[in-house]
Amino acid sequence: MIVSKFLVNWILVCKFAHTYFSMTTQQLINQIKIKKSFLCVGLDVDLNKIPKHLFAFEDPIFEFNKAIIDATHDLAVSYKPNTAFYEAYGIKGWISLQKTINYINENYPEIFTIADAKRGDIGNTSSMYAKAFFEDLNFDSVTVAPYMGKDSVEPFLAFQNKHTILLALTSNEGAFDFQTLNVEGTSGEAERSGAKELYKQVLETSKTWKNSGNLMYVIGATKAEYLTEIRKIIPDSFLLVPGVGAQGGSLSEVCKYGMNANVGLLINSSRAIIYASSGNDFAEKAREEALKMQQEMRKILFQV
Amino acid sequence: MIVSKFLVNWILVCKFAHTYFSMTTQQLINQIKIKKSFLCVGLDVDLNKIPKHLFAFEDPIFEFNKAIIDATHDLAVSYKPNTAFYEAYGIKGWISLQKTINYINENYPEIFTIADAKRGDIGNTSSMYAKAFFEDLNFDSVTVAPYMGKDSVEPFLAFQNKHTILLALTSNEGAFDFQTLNVEGTSGEAERSGAKELYKQVLETSKTWKNSGNLMYVIGATKAEYLTEIRKIIPDSFLLVPGVGAQGGSLSEVCKYGMNANVGLLINSSRAIIYASSGNDFAEKAREEALKMQQEMRKILFQV
Repeated sequence: MIVSKFLVNWILVCKFAHTYFSMTTQQLINQIKIKKSFLCVGLDVDLNKIPKHLFAFEDPIFEFNKAIIDATHDLAVSYKPNTAFYEAYGIKGWISLQKTINYINENYPEIFTIADAKRGDIGNTSSMYAKAFFEDLNFDSVTVAPYMGKDSVEPFLAFQNKHTILLALTSNEGAFDFQTLNVEGTSGEAERSGAKELYKQVLETSKTWKNSGNLMYVIGATKAEYLTEIRKIIPDSFLLVPGVGAQGGSLSEVCKYGMNANVGLLINSSRAIIYASSGNDFAEKAREEALKMQQEMRKILFQV
Repeated sequence: MIVSKFLVNWILVCKFAHTYFSMTTQQLINQIKIKKSFLCVGLDVDLNKIPKHLFAFEDPIFEFNKAIIDATHDLAVSYKPNTAFYEAYGIKGWISLQKTINYINENYPEIFTIADAKRGDIGNTSSMYAKAFFEDLNFDSVTVAPYMGKDSVEPFLAFQNKHTILLALTSNEGAFDFQTLNVEGTSGEAERSGAKELYKQVLETSKTWKNSGNLMYVIGATKAEYLTEIRKIIPDSFLLVPGVGAQGGSLSEVCKYGMNANVGLLINSSRAIIYASSGNDFAEKAREEALKMQQEMRKILFQV
């Protein structure tokens, strides 16, 4: 009896959690308006970079995240843990990730959460990844690589009010190895519209996938000049933009070419915020950096 | 004193483990010759598909894997856990994965282990993924997606006697969305050799990366006729070939067009072997299926 009661409770908790912690695009837009911010803070937590006093805690990674989140939650609309930084610490790391997402969902349910995981595999495998990030960990969104095509992405898109952030044009040097090569289409849309860069083909093809309304895209800030062309293909989609700050991208340039009527941008900053100080004042300094970003954003929003 | 002795022991264990559980390509080739097999068994463990009696154990996934491995280790040269199937069960799943790889490394160190994880991200992030799979979990190899280019793959290649299995031409339908589009090169090699399909460009470009000797490639068996062209670009590399069996690829066709002097193939079979029976005899039936594959492989090896 006790066991079955426990089970029923557990199922109810899960159901409640699933209903509560999904987020529509409109709710995200509302948050951006309320906070006057479209800042996403990347939680790429490296044990070699966090303040030494945190090692007194059982879970230094979680303590670090908790302090950063508490100090910046009113300035950011999104947090983006990068799964690599948790997986590198094995089971302990996975526990830190679980505690971090639970902490956000329980304390700041208005936050749009992103699992920066860059997954993608054949259909039945992508379904398992979707289950991992949308159900087990209960993130609002996950980043996905496009190389394996339609049936590797659609299992993610099948989740209502969960968002799939497809890699299109990334912020690193290697983006020029394949993403910007001109491709000749082999059929349909591509043939009609002639040769184009691979990342544009990814944008166009992805629009034809089932539930493509659940798509957002990764577009690196280091290539802001590409945004005009990108907006012709996907005028309404949200773009997750890494590479502002540490990687050299400019916030004003990105906004100039990439913003739409609903803002349509999430600007990620990781290292510049979370490692603003390596001392006891790390959370306070992180807030200062986040505030600078939010004030720039506020200014831009009022100009629009 | 006890603590520091424990620490020293732990460091020694880790060092020993790292030295012991890496594998050169030559060692893999030797194993193929000894076992007369180039079979890789995919451990894509779905709780909905495993025999019900395993739920009596604390960790049904690990018990399933252990039984499959014990029943097939002399017929297979490689095991390939697909990380999605573990991540879908959260921390418990990650523990099952850790126990599975430890079990293989401790009991069958001659086995070539593959983390089918399809990772890939900007440089500092890929370094963390490499650390996760090569150091923390101690796999011999990991599958990596090429979309983000050189600096997303080279951090994996930096590990000596660890292998990076790059997605080139996958076995799913979505492979035709982008991988087979013709690309026009923008510089160097590509310009000289004219337009080619994206997956061929991936093969050619990847050969120029640092430590490219540590590369292997995923080439789907459902596209065996492409192998002649592929072998012109990468004659010596090992190919991990999914899609034989359940996805319709033919073993003899793959060998006819893809085998090289060192065999150069790892043929993966997942569902056809591990779910050969859903009853108490699942391990026995898995062995029967693995034996069928190994006998076919033995026949092909003796023909060559």
